[in-house]
Amino acid sequence: MGKIILLRHGQSQWNLENRFTGWTDVDLSEKGREEARQAGEKILAAGIEPRYFFTSYLKRAIHTLQIAADAMDRAWVPVVKDWHLNERHYGALQGLNKADTAKKYGDEQVHVWRRSYDVLPPALAPDDERNPAREAKYASLTADELPLAESLKSTIERVRPCWEELIAPAVRLYDTVLVAAHGNSLRGLAMMLLHISPEEVMKLEIPTGSPWILELDDKLHVVKNYYL
Amino acid sequence: MGKIILLRHGQSQWNLENRFTGWTDVDLSEKGREEARQAGEKILAAGIEPRYFFTSYLKRAIHTLQIAADAMDRAWVPVVKDWHLNERHYGALQGLNKADTAKKYGDEQVHVWRRSYDVLPPALAPDDERNPAREAKYASLTADELPLAESLKSTIERVRPCWEELIAPAVRLYDTVLVAAHGNSLRGLAMMLLHISPEEVMKLEIPTGSPWILELDDKLHVVKNYYL
Repeated sequence: MGKIILLRHGQSQWNLENRFTGWTDVDLSEKGREEARQAGEKILAAGIEPRYFFTSYLKRAIHTLQIAADAMDRAWVPVVKDWHLNERHYGALQGLNKADTAKKYGDEQVHVWRRSYDVLPPALAPDDERNPAREAKYASLTADELPLAESLKSTIERVRPCWEELIAPAVRLYDTVLVAAHGNSLRGLAMMLLHISPEEVMKLEIPTGSPWILELDDKLHVVKNYYL
Repeated sequence: MGKIILLRHGQSQWNLENRFTGWTDVDLSEKGREEARQAGEKILAAGIEPRYFFTSYLKRAIHTLQIAADAMDRAWVPVVKDWHLNERHYGALQGLNKADTAKKYGDEQVHVWRRSYDVLPPALAPDDERNPAREAKYASLTADELPLAESLKSTIERVRPCWEELIAPAVRLYDTVLVAAHGNSLRGLAMMLLHISPEEVMKLEIPTGSPWILELDDKLHVVKNYYL
């Protein structure tokens, strides 16, 4: 029987400022760093020993992982960073204050973008300086592989190969793995692991900095799940 | 043409206390963290962009890498942690104060242990609590694979497969790679890359926190080397 630990990163600078973040590479706030430390301490206190780590290409998740690993004295554990675990790409909304966006587009429209399953937010123009194709960290990918906006559905679809090709094999090999990532990419993993519907996944709110333990049988079906 | 950047970790708590460290997993001091930050800033300022990272299983090297990567805004770069890049294992000397060791064994003997190429320091007893076979981080290795003491020569011999099987292929694939490690494991890499003799490698003192750039031709021969 294996275990997968899902850990949503703590507060970032832009969470504090109530702005749409998405793929913008904003760092943790001091509160977010403290949440990460406490998450690591909880995993340590529970006697759970992750032997493989996964995280995204975004520093708020990478730093959450590094801080939690230090709190467990497990800085040495192998880590795979995969852009497929990034947060949902919020398109042209990225960087905008949520209150200002509501004023500009109306509350209802913003609610649809934030809370629907398959509606895309307004896409970035390819020449927008926020286009990920312009960033060094995505230089090995073609523009076709990179989103200019994502719905929750398209986010979950690109998380799937990371689960199937990387995380699931690591659970089989290493027994206990930890994934430090983002609200919507973790929803994707939860949807696949718990076989929940689009309606349910939209309502799923994963708390920040709270290690979510999913215990798996040898077919990788969840037999038990709980937060530390 | 590729580049390899060798970075020796900065001051650790036990460097401060003048104790033999070896595989003891001591963290950086505040000065060591500052050295790592400055190393990252120098690499950034030089316009060098490492695309693959290597480090050891020891947190003073892992944290040096993480801090330097943050200073370059390259937390997302893939990293391989390999115990073959660990510091030389100092056997039963680990944890002893260098001045006390000299009093106990005599200056001359300590000089031989520290400055000879192939003389082993006194080995740990297998039931010593400092035996790495007792540590979670080496649990996937057999006792045979793990040292109870190492000479500079045996350290360099176990660095060799890491160079041949991991680092050299990464230079070919990724062009620019950074290795954050330890005085003696970096001596091993320097010996292989610069084809220097045992006599020369013993005299080689790699400064801490100073990125050492080795520019390579397409046969991975060093054509130029300098510190930033």
